Amino acid sequence: MSDCIFCRIVAGEIPAKKIHEDEDILAFHDIHPVAPVHFLVIPKLHIPSMAELRPEHAAVMGRVMTESARIAGELGCLDGFRTIINTGRVGRQEVYHLHVHILGGPEVLPAMLRR
Amino acid sequence: MSDCIFCRIVAGEIPAKKIHEDEDILAFHDIHPVAPVHFLVIPKLHIPSMAELRPEHAAVMGRVMTESARIAGELGCLDGFRTIINTGRVGRQEVYHLHVHILGGPEVLPAMLRR
Repeated sequence: MSDCIFCRIVAGEIPAKKIHEDEDILAFHDIHPVAPVHFLVIPKLHIPSMAELRPEHAAVMGRVMTESARIAGELGCLDGFRTIINTGRVGRQEVYHLHVHILGGPEVLPAMLRR
Repeated sequence: MSDCIFCRIVAGEIPAKKIHEDEDILAFHDIHPVAPVHFLVIPKLHIPSMAELRPEHAAVMGRVMTESARIAGELGCLDGFRTIINTGRVGRQEVYHLHVHILGGPEVLPAMLRR
Protein backbone atom coordinates (compact mmCIF):
# COMPACT_ATOMS: atom_id res chain seq x y z
CA MET A 1 0.00 0.00 0.00
CA SER A 2 1.40 3.38 -0.99
CA ASP A 3 2.03 6.05 1.64
CA CYS A 4 1.22 8.77 -0.92
CA ILE A 5 -2.27 10.09 -0.24
CA PHE A 6 -2.90 10.92 -3.89
CA CYS A 7 -1.75 7.47 -5.06
CA ARG A 8 -4.21 6.04 -2.53
CA ILE A 9 -6.99 8.21 -3.97
CA VAL A 10 -6.07 6.93 -7.44
CA ALA A 11 -6.20 3.36 -6.09
CA GLY A 12 -9.62 3.95 -4.53
CA GLU A 13 -8.29 3.41 -1.00
CA ILE A 14 -9.21 6.95 0.09
CA PRO A 15 -12.42 8.64 -1.08
CA ALA A 16 -12.42 11.85 -3.07
CA LYS A 17 -15.01 13.96 -4.82
CA LYS A 18 -13.94 12.97 -8.31
CA ILE A 19 -14.73 15.24 -11.23
CA HIS A 20 -12.99 13.42 -14.06
CA GLU A 21 -10.98 10.26 -14.42
CA ASP A 22 -9.36 8.53 -17.35
CA GLU A 23 -6.43 6.25 -17.96
CA ASP A 24 -3.80 8.88 -17.25
CA ILE A 25 -5.22 11.61 -15.02
CA LEU A 26 -7.63 12.27 -12.17
CA ALA A 27 -9.42 15.49 -11.20
CA PHE A 28 -11.10 15.96 -7.82
CA HIS A 29 -12.31 18.73 -5.55
CA ASP A 30 -9.81 20.01 -2.98
CA ILE A 31 -10.73 18.71 0.46
CA HIS A 32 -10.05 22.19 1.93
CA PRO A 33 -11.34 24.55 -0.76
CA VAL A 34 -10.19 28.15 -0.52
CA ALA A 35 -12.23 29.41 -3.46
CA PRO A 36 -15.78 28.80 -4.73
CA VAL A 37 -14.22 26.50 -7.33
CA HIS A 38 -11.08 24.71 -6.16
CA PHE A 39 -10.08 21.43 -7.70
CA LEU A 40 -6.90 19.47 -8.30
CA VAL A 41 -5.74 17.66 -11.40
CA ILE A 42 -3.04 15.03 -11.07
CA PRO A 43 -1.24 12.56 -13.28
CA LYS A 44 -2.00 9.07 -12.00
CA LEU A 45 1.69 8.32 -12.36
CA HIS A 46 3.51 9.17 -9.13
CA ILE A 47 5.70 12.14 -10.02
CA PRO A 48 6.66 13.74 -6.67
CA SER A 49 6.84 17.33 -7.93
CA MET A 50 7.64 19.50 -10.93
CA ALA A 51 11.29 19.19 -9.96
CA GLU A 52 11.14 15.54 -11.07
CA LEU A 53 9.52 16.27 -14.44
CA ARG A 54 11.39 14.70 -17.34
CA PRO A 55 10.83 15.02 -21.10
CA GLU A 56 8.93 11.71 -21.14
CA HIS A 57 6.28 13.29 -18.87
CA ALA A 58 5.33 15.93 -21.44
CA ALA A 59 2.39 13.95 -22.82
CA VAL A 60 0.66 13.41 -19.49
CA MET A 61 1.40 16.96 -18.32
CA GLY A 62 -0.09 18.31 -21.51
CA ARG A 63 -3.27 16.40 -20.81
CA VAL A 64 -3.28 17.63 -17.19
CA MET A 65 -3.23 21.20 -18.48
CA THR A 66 -5.85 20.84 -21.22
CA GLU A 67 -8.19 18.92 -18.92
CA SER A 68 -7.71 21.49 -16.15
CA ALA A 69 -8.89 24.20 -18.50
CA ARG A 70 -11.79 22.15 -19.84
CA ILE A 71 -13.04 21.31 -16.34
CA ALA A 72 -12.68 24.93 -15.19
CA GLY A 73 -15.05 25.90 -17.99
CA GLU A 74 -17.47 23.11 -17.15
CA LEU A 75 -17.54 24.22 -13.51
CA GLY A 76 -18.45 27.75 -14.49
CA CYS A 77 -15.15 29.62 -14.33
CA LEU A 78 -16.15 31.65 -17.37
CA ASP A 79 -14.57 34.90 -16.14
CA GLY A 80 -11.22 33.27 -15.48
CA PHE A 81 -9.31 31.36 -12.85
CA ARG A 82 -5.86 30.86 -11.46
CA THR A 83 -3.63 27.84 -11.92
CA ILE A 84 -1.03 27.19 -9.24
CA ILE A 85 1.53 24.43 -8.86
CA ASN A 86 3.57 24.46 -5.66
CA THR A 87 6.98 22.82 -5.81
CA GLY A 88 9.26 22.01 -2.90
CA ARG A 89 9.89 23.93 0.30
CA VAL A 90 10.06 27.36 -1.30
CA GLY A 91 6.86 26.65 -3.21
CA ARG A 92 5.16 25.43 0.00
CA GLN A 93 4.26 22.08 -1.53
CA GLU A 94 2.18 20.01 0.88
CA VAL A 95 1.55 16.71 -0.91
CA TYR A 96 4.48 15.29 -2.83
CA HIS A 97 2.52 13.97 -5.78
CA LEU A 98 2.50 16.57 -8.55
CA HIS A 99 -0.86 18.37 -8.60
CA VAL A 100 -2.32 21.40 -10.31
CA HIS A 101 -4.61 23.68 -8.30
CA ILE A 102 -7.37 25.43 -10.23
CA LEU A 103 -9.03 28.30 -8.34
CA GLY A 104 -11.99 30.34 -9.47
CA GLY A 105 -13.95 33.02 -7.66
CA PRO A 106 -12.63 36.53 -7.12
CA GLU A 107 -13.66 37.11 -3.51
CA VAL A 108 -11.42 34.67 -1.71
CA LEU A 109 -8.58 34.42 -4.18
CA PRO A 110 -6.21 36.92 -2.53
CA ALA A 111 -6.60 35.18 0.83
CA MET A 112 -5.68 31.81 -0.63
CA LEU A 113 -2.67 33.25 -2.39
CA ARG A 114 -1.23 34.58 0.86
CA ARG A 115 -0.95 31.07 2.30
CA MET B 1 2.49 43.04 -37.47
CA SER B 2 0.81 41.41 -34.51
CA ASP B 3 -0.56 43.53 -31.68
CA CYS B 4 0.27 40.76 -29.21
CA ILE B 5 3.41 41.71 -27.31
CA PHE B 6 4.48 38.08 -26.82
CA CYS B 7 3.97 37.26 -30.51
CA ARG B 8 6.20 40.25 -31.24
CA ILE B 9 8.86 38.92 -28.88
CA VAL B 10 8.62 35.56 -30.69
CA ALA B 11 9.02 37.40 -34.01
CA GLY B 12 12.07 39.30 -32.72
CA GLU B 13 10.32 42.65 -33.06
CA ILE B 14 10.60 43.36 -29.33
CA PRO B 15 13.69 42.41 -27.32
CA ALA B 16 13.56 40.00 -24.40
CA LYS B 17 16.09 38.35 -22.13
CA LYS B 18 15.68 34.92 -23.68
CA ILE B 19 16.61 31.85 -21.67
CA HIS B 20 15.56 29.09 -24.04
CA GLU B 21 14.06 28.92 -27.49
CA ASP B 22 13.13 26.04 -29.76
CA GLU B 23 10.63 25.38 -32.52
CA ASP B 24 7.61 25.36 -30.24
CA ILE B 25 8.31 27.37 -27.09
CA LEU B 26 10.16 30.40 -25.74
CA ALA B 27 11.36 31.15 -22.20
CA PHE B 28 12.44 34.62 -21.11
CA HIS B 29 12.92 36.63 -17.94
CA ASP B 30 9.91 38.67 -16.76
CA ILE B 31 10.48 42.34 -17.50
CA HIS B 32 9.14 43.23 -14.03
CA PRO B 33 10.51 40.43 -11.84
CA VAL B 34 8.88 40.04 -8.44
CA ALA B 35 11.15 37.25 -7.23
CA PRO B 36 14.90 36.54 -7.46
CA VAL B 37 14.05 34.09 -10.24
CA HIS B 38 11.03 35.07 -12.33
CA PHE B 39 10.71 33.88 -15.88
CA LEU B 40 7.94 33.13 -18.34
CA VAL B 41 7.50 30.17 -20.65
CA ILE B 42 5.15 30.51 -23.60
CA PRO B 43 4.02 28.44 -26.54
CA LYS B 44 5.05 30.26 -29.72
CA LEU B 45 1.57 29.53 -31.03
CA HIS B 46 -0.80 32.35 -30.10
CA ILE B 47 -3.20 30.78 -27.61
CA PRO B 48 -4.85 33.72 -25.80
CA SER B 49 -5.31 31.98 -22.45
CA MET B 50 -5.92 28.64 -20.78
CA ALA B 51 -9.62 29.18 -21.52
CA GLU B 52 -8.82 28.58 -25.21
CA LEU B 53 -6.82 25.38 -24.64
CA ARG B 54 -8.04 22.50 -26.79
CA PRO B 55 -6.97 18.84 -26.83
CA GLU B 56 -4.66 19.50 -29.79
CA HIS B 57 -2.60 21.86 -27.59
CA ALA B 58 -1.64 19.10 -25.17
CA ALA B 59 1.71 18.40 -26.81
CA VAL B 60 2.98 21.98 -26.70
CA MET B 61 1.62 22.55 -23.19
CA GLY B 62 3.37 19.42 -22.01
CA ARG B 63 6.64 20.78 -23.33
CA VAL B 64 5.94 24.18 -21.72
CA MET B 65 5.62 22.41 -18.36
CA THR B 66 8.65 20.12 -18.64
CA GLU B 67 10.86 22.94 -19.93
CA SER B 68 9.62 25.26 -17.15
CA ALA B 69 10.78 22.73 -14.59
CA ARG B 70 14.08 22.08 -16.32
CA ILE B 71 14.91 25.77 -16.56
CA ALA B 72 13.92 26.38 -12.92
CA GLY B 73 16.53 23.81 -11.94
CA GLU B 74 19.14 25.33 -14.22
CA LEU B 75 18.51 28.76 -12.71
CA GLY B 76 19.10 27.44 -9.21
CA CYS B 77 15.59 26.91 -7.84
CA LEU B 78 16.76 23.78 -6.07
CA ASP B 79 14.60 24.34 -2.97
CA GLY B 80 11.44 24.78 -4.99
CA PHE B 81 9.44 27.37 -6.83
CA ARG B 82 5.89 28.35 -7.68
CA THR B 83 4.17 28.01 -11.03
CA ILE B 84 1.31 30.39 -11.75
CA ILE B 85 -0.89 30.81 -14.79
CA ASN B 86 -3.37 33.68 -14.69
CA THR B 87 -6.48 33.30 -16.82
CA GLY B 88 -9.03 35.97 -17.62
CA ARG B 89 -10.38 38.77 -15.47
CA VAL B 90 -10.76 36.72 -12.30
CA GLY B 91 -7.25 35.36 -12.74
CA ARG B 92 -5.89 38.89 -13.31
CA GLN B 93 -4.35 37.97 -16.65
CA GLU B 94 -2.40 40.88 -18.10
CA VAL B 95 -1.09 39.64 -21.45
CA TYR B 96 -3.49 37.57 -23.53
CA HIS B 97 -0.95 35.11 -24.87
CA LEU B 98 -0.86 32.04 -22.63
CA HIS B 99 2.20 32.20 -20.36
CA VAL B 100 3.48 30.29 -17.36
CA HIS B 101 5.15 32.25 -14.54
CA ILE B 102 7.91 30.49 -12.65
CA LEU B 103 8.88 32.17 -9.36
CA GLY B 104 11.67 31.17 -7.04
CA GLY B 105 13.02 32.85 -3.93
CA PRO B 106 11.23 32.73 -0.60
CA GLU B 107 11.63 36.32 0.52
CA VAL B 108 9.45 38.13 -1.99
CA LEU B 109 7.09 35.36 -2.94
CA PRO B 110 4.19 36.34 -0.63
CA ALA B 111 4.31 39.93 -1.87
CA MET B 112 4.07 38.83 -5.49
CA LEU B 113 1.18 36.55 -4.75
CA ARG B 114 -0.86 39.38 -3.26
CA ARG B 115 -0.88 41.21 -6.58
